[in-house]
Amino acid sequence: MAIRLYDLAGAEPERRFSPFCWRTRLALAHKRLDVETVPWRFTEKDVIAFSGQGRVPVIQDGERMVYDSWTIAEYLEERYADGPSLFGGAEAKAVTRFVAGWVDTVLHPGIFRLILPDVFAHLHEKDKDYFRTSREKAIGVTLEAFAANRDADVVSFRQSLQPLRRSLQAQPFLAGAAPAYADHIVFGGFQWARATSRFALLEAGDPVAAWRARMLDAYDGLARRAPGYDA
Amino acid sequence: MAIRLYDLAGAEPERRFSPFCWRTRLALAHKRLDVETVPWRFTEKDVIAFSGQGRVPVIQDGERMVYDSWTIAEYLEERYADGPSLFGGAEAKAVTRFVAGWVDTVLHPGIFRLILPDVFAHLHEKDKDYFRTSREKAIGVTLEAFAANRDADVVSFRQSLQPLRRSLQAQPFLAGAAPAYADHIVFGGFQWARATSRFALLEAGDPVAAWRARMLDAYDGLARRAPGYDA
Repeated sequence: MAIRLYDLAGAEPERRFSPFCWRTRLALAHKRLDVETVPWRFTEKDVIAFSGQGRVPVIQDGERMVYDSWTIAEYLEERYADGPSLFGGAEAKAVTRFVAGWVDTVLHPGIFRLILPDVFAHLHEKDKDYFRTSREKAIGVTLEAFAANRDADVVSFRQSLQPLRRSLQAQPFLAGAAPAYADHIVFGGFQWARATSRFALLEAGDPVAAWRARMLDAYDGLARRAPGYDA
Repeated sequence: MAIRLYDLAGAEPERRFSPFCWRTRLALAHKRLDVETVPWRFTEKDVIAFSGQGRVPVIQDGERMVYDSWTIAEYLEERYADGPSLFGGAEAKAVTRFVAGWVDTVLHPGIFRLILPDVFAHLHEKDKDYFRTSREKAIGVTLEAFAANRDADVVSFRQSLQPLRRSLQAQPFLAGAAPAYADHIVFGGFQWARATSRFALLEAGDPVAAWRARMLDAYDGLARRAPGYDA
């Protein structure tokens, strides 16, 4: 039986833009597990109330429910230990946490500032009020004002990718010769942007752009086939 | 026969302050290898000319010479494969490169700005002209002007440690339950500061400070016994 993934969707049900759901989607593909995704919107809290919290990703694997992308990755690694490893051992998993910390505190805030109005434009109508109100409360200005300087902000954003660039100048993937969960974590951010925005995050010659292309092709082109813009 | 490490020293020969040499020193301790360190100053290029380049760390292991801290770590991991692993496997090594990229492009530049005149104050007299001239050429202002706003700069420095903090809130070391090369890489930066500066990089309650204390105690207190200031 396929694992069910509750997956954040836009107005178009196939437009999946949550960076955290993408981590889980890629982890499931990495483990070669069948998945049945359920499009979910921010305001459908009742649909995932069974999980005891209000955010996706949530997976249902037979009797077992798991939420939070990191916890899901740990669950899949243990439950499906026979499949390709998501981490490559205990030390690799521990060091991958640092990558997650960097993505959550540097990469995601950087991307957020560049694409926020584009994300808003792709939301289902029923999510728009919720999204605008909650995000504007968090950022203290309108969505549009927040991203108004993105042509300048993208310069410091690209500069902030130096750790990633260094790594990808030395090897094809963050996890080495092939992608693993460290790559899923970082790529989720880029897929969030790709699903919602035409704004060019990267310059063409950037080693990060070459890696992003490899990630779009990985797992039989799973990420490339998803609705998005190739900016 | 002990491995010989050419190790950057200040005016006092036992004051060792290179963050890259500290990576190697800790890696050698991790592998439980005997080391004989040779205090080396920036202007003693002739002493390491046999390595074909002008920077430390350089190690001499019997007939074998290796330079560059990452290359040394790879060499030690392979040559002394029976000792405790520096990485914990191929994937862990690959992901550790991201940590190195972050340290080289975020942590070190951040620390450099806070401690530069303190580093200068501890140099051997024969290194001072070389250091001032080369560094001031690189930064475009005097050493003193570069660090003049450190009471303000330390706020953004501490903010830049968020990825580290996230990881260390979840586990005792970057590499998990015990330190490994990912920890050596990051800690080298803090030991560079400790060897040369009384300036407090961290606030007392910071999880990063608690990890730093664990790293000072690791390997029988190797780093804590080295000359430095407990700021």
